[in-house]
Amino acid sequence: MFKIRSLVTALTLAGAVSAASAAETLPTTAPAPADNPTTEAKVELGQMLYHDPRLSSTGTVSCASCHNTMLGGEDNRPNAMGVNGQTGGRSAPTVWNAAFNKVQFWDGRAASLEEQAAGPVTNPIEMGMKSWDDVVARLNPIEGYKEAFAKAFGTDSTITRDNATKAIAAYERTLITPNSPYDRYAGGEESALTPQQVRGMNKAVELGCTGCHSGPAFNGPGTFQHFPVIDNGYFEAQYHFKKDKGLAEVTKKTEDEHMWKVPTLRNIALTAPYFHNGSVKTLDKAVQVMAKVQLGKELSKEETADIVAFLNSLTGEFPQQKMPMLPGTPGNTFN
Amino acid sequence: MFKIRSLVTALTLAGAVSAASAAETLPTTAPAPADNPTTEAKVELGQMLYHDPRLSSTGTVSCASCHNTMLGGEDNRPNAMGVNGQTGGRSAPTVWNAAFNKVQFWDGRAASLEEQAAGPVTNPIEMGMKSWDDVVARLNPIEGYKEAFAKAFGTDSTITRDNATKAIAAYERTLITPNSPYDRYAGGEESALTPQQVRGMNKAVELGCTGCHSGPAFNGPGTFQHFPVIDNGYFEAQYHFKKDKGLAEVTKKTEDEHMWKVPTLRNIALTAPYFHNGSVKTLDKAVQVMAKVQLGKELSKEETADIVAFLNSLTGEFPQQKMPMLPGTPGNTFN
Repeated sequence: MFKIRSLVTALTLAGAVSAASAAETLPTTAPAPADNPTTEAKVELGQMLYHDPRLSSTGTVSCASCHNTMLGGEDNRPNAMGVNGQTGGRSAPTVWNAAFNKVQFWDGRAASLEEQAAGPVTNPIEMGMKSWDDVVARLNPIEGYKEAFAKAFGTDSTITRDNATKAIAAYERTLITPNSPYDRYAGGEESALTPQQVRGMNKAVELGCTGCHSGPAFNGPGTFQHFPVIDNGYFEAQYHFKKDKGLAEVTKKTEDEHMWKVPTLRNIALTAPYFHNGSVKTLDKAVQVMAKVQLGKELSKEETADIVAFLNSLTGEFPQQKMPMLPGTPGNTFN
Repeated sequence: MFKIRSLVTALTLAGAVSAASAAETLPTTAPAPADNPTTEAKVELGQMLYHDPRLSSTGTVSCASCHNTMLGGEDNRPNAMGVNGQTGGRSAPTVWNAAFNKVQFWDGRAASLEEQAAGPVTNPIEMGMKSWDDVVARLNPIEGYKEAFAKAFGTDSTITRDNATKAIAAYERTLITPNSPYDRYAGGEESALTPQQVRGMNKAVELGCTGCHSGPAFNGPGTFQHFPVIDNGYFEAQYHFKKDKGLAEVTKKTEDEHMWKVPTLRNIALTAPYFHNGSVKTLDKAVQVMAKVQLGKELSKEETADIVAFLNSLTGEFPQQKMPMLPGTPGNTFN
């Protein structure tokens, strides 16, 4: 089902990956599954649904509340805050370039954006709807949604969970941030990176970061990875990484304990705080922790600064979006 | 400071206001105070601040959370929900066309949009910031805001409460919804209203609704009004209108008890539930309640439907906005 990479494998791979071979620019379009081709009407509907707080029990939380498309695709909080001020144990991952993840959620338990989109809506501490039937019942009386579903899905345009999550996923596939300084450098514009950023990039390769964080979204070649690989009492006492068992929380399998999706490094400068539990506030600390618990390396202040400078070069260009106008519920309240 | 209209005055006025004289179209620009002229750079900054959840203690609530610019300018909730799921006793008024209110907040306690904008940010159950100094301390490290304030305010571009609220108010002055069917009708396009809507409009004038709800935003000629004027035990038992003393909650003056700003009727079809405490779910019930407790009139089902049809003609055209990209806090969390 997925690859488990040991530290040894990661280090071996790292040696084989050069800065040059890591230099893949971010595609400007994302592949879509055969049963959900990306169309303009679907993207438009998806953008509406994504930003509609009426998809939550209190009418206050939309997908965008935790995965903010006006910011780095998340909420800059240690843990996301759902309906009625409830919080869970995990930090919201960014929606930008999520189209390039092989699996979704921190623990990778969803195979697609479509599957992911269905989850938070009925999670009691996130959007808190009792069921997707309730969501459908809430959307059905909204005339503007009927029209938007018809435009997006033609003959099979019933308002259903399937169609709603397809539209949301189609919209998310457009949330791509190309043309970062790194991409321009990789495309041949040598001055796009500062000498410090180039040093940081080479250091990241040399250390082995790119063993797991390579490819255009810096989230491959594998899908899952053990974290933390090396036990570290000092960091564990501060950050409690191991309190959450990752994929094993879902599968209950010993081999899945502390297995996590390899997250993208794209726009990482904008998505503090860091790690699955948002326990590390700054990017330089996050880099030091990763070097230590994944690769067994102690970084100097200069090396850390260089790598952080490189990571800052992964901040891309955010597409100018139009603000969706959500269809109203004329003359009545939403619940 | 403000006019108190008794029922008698309201009814007298109503008699004097004809459908023709009520026919004022909504201006497409709003007047600005001398010390805060509306400029493009200020509007752009204001739009960012308005949509930035980092202006709240939890980083989850922006002005737009309760005054949603993707919807009817509010949240369709009986009472607004602030940080940590807290709720107050009042319903969020719409931000659309708020520029045409003579005073702001339900109880009219703020004289300007600038003054209003400062309030919710430090209200413990709304955005929950301890002080504007804390807001400034949070915004100061964000490089993109420094640039946006400089662009908006030139030589005096320090990030301060004054400048932030000026920018937010400048943005809000652009939130105008012209060209409603009613406006087109008032401008001479007779077919813009259905015969039922014309009947409803004439009935509203005849009943005396326009004694308080006249002018381009249907929120004048006076500024404040007593509500409810006529005690009604049946409605009071259901809706508890009098539990909240309105302006007197602030001024502590007997003469201000149950005095409220006359709210605009623009886009009212999109802003259910109704009244200061959001206690009435539907527009037809709201119309019946108003007729009874303000004017002493019992409406038939047909009269109610006609007036509701007319009110639906006050839904305007919402300007296409670009979605603001909020400047990030590179490499660090917001708090």
